[in-house]
Amino acid sequence: MGRVTARRPVMRISADRRTERPDTLAVEEPLEIRVSGEPLTVTMRTPGDDFDLVAGFLTAEGVIQTAADLPAMRICTDADETGAPTFNVVDVTLAAGLEPPAARAFATTSACGVCGTASIDLLRRRAPYDLSTDQVRLDPAILSALPDRLRDAQRVFEKTGGLHAAGLFDAHGSLLAIREDVGRHNAVDKIIGWALRAGRLPLTGHVLMVSGRASFELVQKAVIAGIPVLTAVSAPSSLAVDLAAEARLTLIGFLRGTSMNVYSETRRVGP
Amino acid sequence: MGRVTARRPVMRISADRRTERPDTLAVEEPLEIRVSGEPLTVTMRTPGDDFDLVAGFLTAEGVIQTAADLPAMRICTDADETGAPTFNVVDVTLAAGLEPPAARAFATTSACGVCGTASIDLLRRRAPYDLSTDQVRLDPAILSALPDRLRDAQRVFEKTGGLHAAGLFDAHGSLLAIREDVGRHNAVDKIIGWALRAGRLPLTGHVLMVSGRASFELVQKAVIAGIPVLTAVSAPSSLAVDLAAEARLTLIGFLRGTSMNVYSETRRVGP
Repeated sequence: MGRVTARRPVMRISADRRTERPDTLAVEEPLEIRVSGEPLTVTMRTPGDDFDLVAGFLTAEGVIQTAADLPAMRICTDADETGAPTFNVVDVTLAAGLEPPAARAFATTSACGVCGTASIDLLRRRAPYDLSTDQVRLDPAILSALPDRLRDAQRVFEKTGGLHAAGLFDAHGSLLAIREDVGRHNAVDKIIGWALRAGRLPLTGHVLMVSGRASFELVQKAVIAGIPVLTAVSAPSSLAVDLAAEARLTLIGFLRGTSMNVYSETRRVGP
Repeated sequence: MGRVTARRPVMRISADRRTERPDTLAVEEPLEIRVSGEPLTVTMRTPGDDFDLVAGFLTAEGVIQTAADLPAMRICTDADETGAPTFNVVDVTLAAGLEPPAARAFATTSACGVCGTASIDLLRRRAPYDLSTDQVRLDPAILSALPDRLRDAQRVFEKTGGLHAAGLFDAHGSLLAIREDVGRHNAVDKIIGWALRAGRLPLTGHVLMVSGRASFELVQKAVIAGIPVLTAVSAPSSLAVDLAAEARLTLIGFLRGTSMNVYSETRRVGP
């Protein structure tokens, strides 16, 4: 669609040389999500795969669980001040009986105030799948091959250096889907939304790989999609590890070369 | 406070060797912000400098502009299920006449739907300071020294590899404040909140440096704090560049070694 990257002029300074040239940047634009015409939220994202993004966002929020829960999505034809369509509003119709999340005040109703434990408790009540029974086992050699495969498939990053990537792999290390976005949570939402729309949830036996760090939020999204293994190029946070242990997800960090750190459910990593 | 890092067991796999050892991780915990006892939002953050974080968040949201607008903040003594205090709730009192933001549905009321231009327009109406008159001028040699200074001061990253940093420098390249967080927007909020509480807003003539990429949101926060120069180690997004140009902020990306990309207001970079 030509909207994933944009050109802007830049002055490049290197030692004492200055050159003016156009630079290719990752596009960031707001996306408004509406439910039956009512605004729900606005997220900053890289345009493209917007239906996947919306479907994944609603899945991660616990609003929907199958493609049938989302009978219709459409791009509104809102126009900017020049009259050109913005393509920045998606209006969804939920299946009968489903409600949009009222407000995003998660964990605020917990008896123990706000703490990591309360956040994990809330997610446990919301997660529709049980990861403890997922028996997938991955050879470290297969895991070690994933970062290069993700990078090879990540075309926009090459041009801009500005996009996070999320890739979904099967247990043999084959790449099933890759999505890129300025927001790493968006890249994961796009993957999960793609899977939901393809009727592939839960993603039993699959591996989700992210290009950056592993936060609580990314583990949360993997758990809700039924993904048993999450790998990251960089470090996890403490709460990401705690949630992974509680939800029985295998969390791998610092996946570089032939080495990696396995923080939970080490039973799934081995020859 | 000992809560910035946490130890968790990890299985380290390197080639065919497996070793079990404790790993040091960046702590991620939820923080609930309340206004006069009413829950406003929950953000995932690294504990520490929580008053700065809350003050910066409210500044960036356009709720407050000076320290006098925030006469009181206190940490609530909510307890977790073991009875231990969580330190994860901050309750603020706003000065008379100030209202918390009703909902974060920004840009949804714009006449032209949701688009980058509308987002920029909204911010322009909210930004309290005019950057166009900021005459600061920075030698490229001073700018080139900032990444090492930020990294040298970033102590937790060394141990965990998991934290973003934001540093505030003066025009001579002296570091005035550094804050670290699992969320890069939080690191910037902590800097801005520190400045507000110290009576230093607007930050005329200063440079804000961030360890990662430059998004729309980070430019927005710099503009609202009156910071004329934002530098990032990595790439900016398209909307970050557009907003910087509109707000007359000097945006620098890919600041590495003796080279850098200047995307806007190049007049501020020179000998």
